[in-house]
Amino acid sequence: MVSESPSHWVNQSNAALLTDLYQLTMMDAYHAEGMNDVAVFDLFARRLPETRNYLIACGLDDVLQYLETLSFSKSALEYLRSLNRFSSEFLRYLASFRFTGDVWAMPEGTAFFANEPVLEIVAPLAEAQLAETFVLNQMHIGTLAASKAARVVTAAAGRTVVDYGLRRMHGTDAGIKTARAFYIAGVDATSNVLAGEMYGLPVAGTMAHSYIQAHATEFDAFRSFVTLSRGAILLVDTYDTIEGIQQIIRLARMMGERFDVAGIRLDSGDVFSLSKEARRLLDEAGLARVKIFASSEMDEHSIAGLLDAGAPIDGFGVGTRMAVSADAPYLDLVYKLVEYGGQPKTKRSPGKAVLPGRKQVYRKGENAFAVKDFVGRSDEELKAMPLLEPVMIRGRRLRAPLPLIDIREYCREQRRILPPSILSLTPGTYPVEITTSLQELAERTAAKRQGLQL
Amino acid sequence: MVSESPSHWVNQSNAALLTDLYQLTMMDAYHAEGMNDVAVFDLFARRLPETRNYLIACGLDDVLQYLETLSFSKSALEYLRSLNRFSSEFLRYLASFRFTGDVWAMPEGTAFFANEPVLEIVAPLAEAQLAETFVLNQMHIGTLAASKAARVVTAAAGRTVVDYGLRRMHGTDAGIKTARAFYIAGVDATSNVLAGEMYGLPVAGTMAHSYIQAHATEFDAFRSFVTLSRGAILLVDTYDTIEGIQQIIRLARMMGERFDVAGIRLDSGDVFSLSKEARRLLDEAGLARVKIFASSEMDEHSIAGLLDAGAPIDGFGVGTRMAVSADAPYLDLVYKLVEYGGQPKTKRSPGKAVLPGRKQVYRKGENAFAVKDFVGRSDEELKAMPLLEPVMIRGRRLRAPLPLIDIREYCREQRRILPPSILSLTPGTYPVEITTSLQELAERTAAKRQGLQL
Repeated sequence: MVSESPSHWVNQSNAALLTDLYQLTMMDAYHAEGMNDVAVFDLFARRLPETRNYLIACGLDDVLQYLETLSFSKSALEYLRSLNRFSSEFLRYLASFRFTGDVWAMPEGTAFFANEPVLEIVAPLAEAQLAETFVLNQMHIGTLAASKAARVVTAAAGRTVVDYGLRRMHGTDAGIKTARAFYIAGVDATSNVLAGEMYGLPVAGTMAHSYIQAHATEFDAFRSFVTLSRGAILLVDTYDTIEGIQQIIRLARMMGERFDVAGIRLDSGDVFSLSKEARRLLDEAGLARVKIFASSEMDEHSIAGLLDAGAPIDGFGVGTRMAVSADAPYLDLVYKLVEYGGQPKTKRSPGKAVLPGRKQVYRKGENAFAVKDFVGRSDEELKAMPLLEPVMIRGRRLRAPLPLIDIREYCREQRRILPPSILSLTPGTYPVEITTSLQELAERTAAKRQGLQL
Repeated sequence: MVSESPSHWVNQSNAALLTDLYQLTMMDAYHAEGMNDVAVFDLFARRLPETRNYLIACGLDDVLQYLETLSFSKSALEYLRSLNRFSSEFLRYLASFRFTGDVWAMPEGTAFFANEPVLEIVAPLAEAQLAETFVLNQMHIGTLAASKAARVVTAAAGRTVVDYGLRRMHGTDAGIKTARAFYIAGVDATSNVLAGEMYGLPVAGTMAHSYIQAHATEFDAFRSFVTLSRGAILLVDTYDTIEGIQQIIRLARMMGERFDVAGIRLDSGDVFSLSKEARRLLDEAGLARVKIFASSEMDEHSIAGLLDAGAPIDGFGVGTRMAVSADAPYLDLVYKLVEYGGQPKTKRSPGKAVLPGRKQVYRKGENAFAVKDFVGRSDEELKAMPLLEPVMIRGRRLRAPLPLIDIREYCREQRRILPPSILSLTPGTYPVEITTSLQELAERTAAKRQGLQL
């Protein structure tokens, strides 16, 4: 029985309206003024949150899909007309609107730092302007999620990390984009079935308290579940954790060879001492093969703390704190005009200054580690690895999306070459230098503007 | 030119898979065990964030739409089969799966507190279990957003508040759901055009720095924009705020009666002193009708600080901090089994205990203020206003969704009756009492379980 209420899903047919009103107002003005020369916009982080030493670029695939398919549906145009704000000429222009520009970007999974453009759009002014909001929205959630997960994965030092966070992520789109970003950053699996289907991610899960509660006794619940599913992970804290483990040992004795249990899950209480006690009890009962998973309020700090103290934990189910990047729930990611009609452009608002012109980011390595980045003009020749590469020309992708497993491997390599002080959980700053040539351009651009203004 | 890459949008046809894997694993087990009696699940906040004295319920409309249309598509079933985890009988059962249960809920816009069920689902066990993840995901983002916005709106004390946050919200779905929740909580307009179209929200916007930068001079940009759009709001901080305001005054003199400008926008620097100076300069130039808007890193605290100090600001553009509820980016919202097959159910995990049985929340008023809430059994008769009402019976909504403007008005009234100490930005706790009858049930349920376990 399908509901009568209108649908509230964003998709390809309405995504063109998922923008800020002012983008359309400015486009209308540009249209009337005949201003549609080529513009260059840089997407970069103005600064990093205190608890991030590096960011992991993520979200480009969705940005490119959006740009390739961007258009205004009939109903979108009707809505815009109904606002009585836009000229008929402009609405006619929108009816055949397409994105025809170029995009340069760091590949997904690249580690980057403050003031480094991670994406550069080179397109007719109106096209680049419209795209700002959606492009930021998608690069922001992807990068936010991947950057948090990279810390958790590093702290877990090779133990399994599973994403349990869908219920607290902000909406359905964050649910799938975050799961994808987590996988790229090294998370091993997700509980999110749709993300599993869409992206081919490994899916994993255990059982909920409700399953235990629905049965007459905890023992009945364990017995039924183990009988019905292979390699189960049993949740032991519904009533009393140690009592729960004892029920499992009793069940193992009763079932003998048919006892096919992969692990237990601790979800509350003092996880450190419970894990020690659980390991002892299981080992004494000849259940050394039964692993211990922990899932109570986990993040990079609690995981590092548990492992440093020697907790015998084999894997972590990580929920809310990673799901919403709780310690840093947003990034200061911006999208700024740096060139228009071949003229470099700048901005001087306090704390929000912008470097002009097309750019390249260069990474210098030494002994298999990255040691310094340079933000320079796109036409400089530095003896260092350039990170921005063309990914879209005249509105078409240059290549098919990479398999996620390859992006994940690339991201692992990116983290491997970061200096240990940057990978660590204590604050550290990676050196990023603005080249002399770019600095000079910034000074000339500011001086020229001053001349015009006066 | 449509891309070849598969689409990554959540919608009605794939939302059934937007759940945690363990829900399906447990459903499979329940199916095999023949356990499908009626279950009752409560959705409530275990505790409030330190910076929230109350929450505003939001997200119910999307929950009901999901429940009414929930089904597994052919491709969803194929994916589940490909996992080799589920029995064929279970997959056949899923092929004709529908939600047939009842839902009780507080109306959207209701103020609520810790431990108060805001939603109660009464349905065959498997149906209620599957729904957990999506229901939490949507109630969480709606309630999170509305609860943050209510604080901002209260702080703005009648000044206009406009949502500018789409670019930093977590993904596209958060973009539209948050804009809707903000409107319910009293925000006046959004910059999000799609949310405007979907929900009929007022849309608003000004201009970006890129517009100023793209022109040869700031003055040229202002002149073009004012010529082309009525009631413009001009952004004055691209190069120097006071200089920007002087350009506007010069333009007003030049254009005379054709100068149709609604306001200026301050977006960086010391907003308090800039607003004082801007007001002085504009008034001296005979431009008292030109309003002042501020949009730099606004939240309830900065707004309250500016207004308390007497800043002559007429409206606020509020971005990131409200958009992601930055001070409290998640709520401890949970969905717990409280009854199965007519038997009350409980759970004792440390810090995560659950009260058993079907419930009602009662609000007691005195002198037009709410003074105390009671969480009791659903069949108690208290001399207080019951907040949970039936909204879905046997899988069908009882009534069409209310117009948003009515929900907004109801929410305003809900905030009006809250004690001033709860509405304020300093921490305060509203009294919520568990009734004797419910406490007794909790004790009996715990004792009974202990008897069974031993």
